[in-house]
Amino acid sequence: MTYDPQNPFAKILRGELPCVRVYEDEATVAIMDIMPQAEGHVLVLTKEPAAEIFDLSADGAAACMRTAQRVAAAVKAALAPEGLVIGQFNGAAAGQTVPHVHFHILPRYEGQALRPHGSVHADTEALNALAARIKAALSKQG
Amino acid sequence: MTYDPQNPFAKILRGELPCVRVYEDEATVAIMDIMPQAEGHVLVLTKEPAAEIFDLSADGAAACMRTAQRVAAAVKAALAPEGLVIGQFNGAAAGQTVPHVHFHILPRYEGQALRPHGSVHADTEALNALAARIKAALSKQG
Repeated sequence: MTYDPQNPFAKILRGELPCVRVYEDEATVAIMDIMPQAEGHVLVLTKEPAAEIFDLSADGAAACMRTAQRVAAAVKAALAPEGLVIGQFNGAAAGQTVPHVHFHILPRYEGQALRPHGSVHADTEALNALAARIKAALSKQG
Repeated sequence: MTYDPQNPFAKILRGELPCVRVYEDEATVAIMDIMPQAEGHVLVLTKEPAAEIFDLSADGAAACMRTAQRVAAAVKAALAPEGLVIGQFNGAAAGQTVPHVHFHILPRYEGQALRPHGSVHADTEALNALAARIKAALSKQG
């Protein structure tokens, strides 16, 4: 995929679109997916203008992993899913829909299939409530 | 999941089981999946005795990401898949089958569904041939 500076994640990073943020550092931002495939679905965005993992610097990839690991632990602590997937998709053939590198943090609950990608818009208040629980768990990581 | 030092990846790391290796450094090993879900399916293993991402050190996670990014680029260069997924599963509910942290590098080919996890044993000569192409691409990364 070619990088498009008008992609929705680039707009979120520039403050041109709203988001429900759970974490931010110099290299990454973590936000609630607004069309979650499971309760507590979080996206970790790089701040680099990179479309695919092949375009991302090694430092940028390491920063995404650090944030993904922290957020995954916080999601587990806050929501107690039975499983958790970290997924990163490159190319339309791999299911990528936004040309800006992002890592999915996907809680898995016993007996619950994932909802199809981008199928149902979540209620903002529900996302805010989940984000508050995840942020509380992050703050306990010290 | 609880770490089990007799899991197959631990045995591979100790040299007690064979594998088709494409890469190794001080913290990680990358091997061909012997029951690949797609042609060129590679696994990046941490050398730490960690069952899930929550048990892995931050340095160990960064090392896995570094190797995953390198191997992903080599798989893309060698096999030219239209897409590529990096996936890491924690817990049986997330599809984890071996209690040792590993990252899937999954090439995606247009119009080809993934084979079910662990369904068909690959031919060792075919895996060796794929590994040779991926290693050649890795060696060109400098």
